[in-house]
Amino acid sequence: MKTYQQLFELFTSHINEAEYGKNPKELYEPISYMMQLGGKRLRPILSLMACNLFEENVAKALHAAHAIEVFHNFSLVHDDIMDNAPLRRGKETIYKKWNMPIAILSGDLMMIKATQLLCKTNDVDIRELLNVFNNTAVEVCEGQQIDMNFETQKSVSHEEYLEMIKLKTAVLLGCSLKIGAIIGGANKEDAKHIYDFGINIGLAFQIQDDILDSFGDGSITGKQVGGDIIANKKTLLLIELIDSVHKDDQLLLEKAMKNQNDNEKIIVILSLYNKYKIQEFAEGKKEIYLKLAYEHLSKVNIEESKKVIITHTAQELMSRIS
Amino acid sequence: MKTYQQLFELFTSHINEAEYGKNPKELYEPISYMMQLGGKRLRPILSLMACNLFEENVAKALHAAHAIEVFHNFSLVHDDIMDNAPLRRGKETIYKKWNMPIAILSGDLMMIKATQLLCKTNDVDIRELLNVFNNTAVEVCEGQQIDMNFETQKSVSHEEYLEMIKLKTAVLLGCSLKIGAIIGGANKEDAKHIYDFGINIGLAFQIQDDILDSFGDGSITGKQVGGDIIANKKTLLLIELIDSVHKDDQLLLEKAMKNQNDNEKIIVILSLYNKYKIQEFAEGKKEIYLKLAYEHLSKVNIEESKKVIITHTAQELMSRIS
Repeated sequence: MKTYQQLFELFTSHINEAEYGKNPKELYEPISYMMQLGGKRLRPILSLMACNLFEENVAKALHAAHAIEVFHNFSLVHDDIMDNAPLRRGKETIYKKWNMPIAILSGDLMMIKATQLLCKTNDVDIRELLNVFNNTAVEVCEGQQIDMNFETQKSVSHEEYLEMIKLKTAVLLGCSLKIGAIIGGANKEDAKHIYDFGINIGLAFQIQDDILDSFGDGSITGKQVGGDIIANKKTLLLIELIDSVHKDDQLLLEKAMKNQNDNEKIIVILSLYNKYKIQEFAEGKKEIYLKLAYEHLSKVNIEESKKVIITHTAQELMSRIS
Repeated sequence: MKTYQQLFELFTSHINEAEYGKNPKELYEPISYMMQLGGKRLRPILSLMACNLFEENVAKALHAAHAIEVFHNFSLVHDDIMDNAPLRRGKETIYKKWNMPIAILSGDLMMIKATQLLCKTNDVDIRELLNVFNNTAVEVCEGQQIDMNFETQKSVSHEEYLEMIKLKTAVLLGCSLKIGAIIGGANKEDAKHIYDFGINIGLAFQIQDDILDSFGDGSITGKQVGGDIIANKKTLLLIELIDSVHKDDQLLLEKAMKNQNDNEKIIVILSLYNKYKIQEFAEGKKEIYLKLAYEHLSKVNIEESKKVIITHTAQELMSRIS
């Protein structure tokens, strides 16, 4: 079994050697720029880890892991245009550094390159891999649209919110793991449990992200604390607050959501979150999904000792308390 | 052998039954809208025709033909954003009728759906089909970028122009034919000749389009005559004129290209096209590519009688004199 660090180094050296193309440079330079911005490389590492559960030679899954990282970055390039985002990992987004047509077109090209990379995987039923990959890609697009719809949607239910984060975030984690497992030779049942482990970890991870945005330490998370509150973003916290608030606090909440003074707004909403025990509610939900995730992992029919690295990685993700 | 009309009806009834998805409707309604705008359906029909050269049961190629039509429409949806185009086939573009984020995301989804449709093709080496399809998709993106580069590029050579129209237009015709031929069971050599037939027909077709834009009858082509001239678009005609013009006419040409009065501009440029026999030059080029196309078709190792429909279709395309 390879450690997280070993897999990270293997993957990093693999993509550092990657050549996506040369001409026209207006199209390929943004792709190299984006792929070199770094990040945790969580999804490709999960693919390699899942492969490693069933197969010693994880190099078999490198092209697929690369495909998933390119796909993930394609979705970020296009999301940044839609969200009008100036920065990504502290650097200018493609759409700001170059322009909108180049961001659209280099994103399109990344999507195609992702499929090409996936097809480089040998000794596997390529139709099965493509099915998992393309179904996930469709869901990620659907999730992004549902998230955009939330901005103008008056009320969002818990179920709608959970469906959105499942599509926008969790399915790609599930897909990364499942594709790695299939390449490693997992049977259908094990591949399904690995996928469901990923889905539930993804849901827990996104809920944790929502909690950190309001209750985290900005100097550690690297994000503006209360960014979601300022934007009235329909997170699990806000949705639960709107559902729970008593008549007496209704007006206070409505006024706060319209308040243009960010500091005042954050103070009032946080006080309501505390009053209605919203953090505890969200932590409870997170724990439910974590528990489900580990149940699925426990059903994967391999030695328990092999699961340690993947469990450890999930715990690392979740221990970002602040 | 099926006629063009029979294939058109077969394909139309196939896509009329297509369901791309339902929710979120903001994403799927634009896809159905775009796919129902119609058009000649040239590319999918070419796929079916090429299949029919080798195989009686053309239904085998329906999913692939559909995939190519969806891919073509994906590229139009994104091109319309980049070109800021308000109309497509006389109807509002997705980007105008909905908005830019929806046009980006529904385009992305169409690209993924195209791969999914291609993968529905049975009894074929799916990796081979995907290679042809993805390589072409990459080239189409490259062609679009090169075309955008031309707008700000001071001078464009004949070779650069021909490379651009090859990538932007011709390779998808070649790909449509080759994929149909592979599904029909063509051997590698025949598939290559069919592809090269498509490439050369595509080049001839695009040159003809350039000629019609300046010399066609707008009431028949449905386009504004001289649109390319007004926009100083670097077509084969303008590139050749810039190359051929004598010193004495240099200033006249430069002034005309800067003239804000469209009618005056068209009159002067057309007079220069006539003086330097630019239409004849372009017609000559077109004939060279047509000849090359038929040479490749003649080398396809099947009965000559089977080639009649495909030859006839090419001639129909080329007989749009006005």
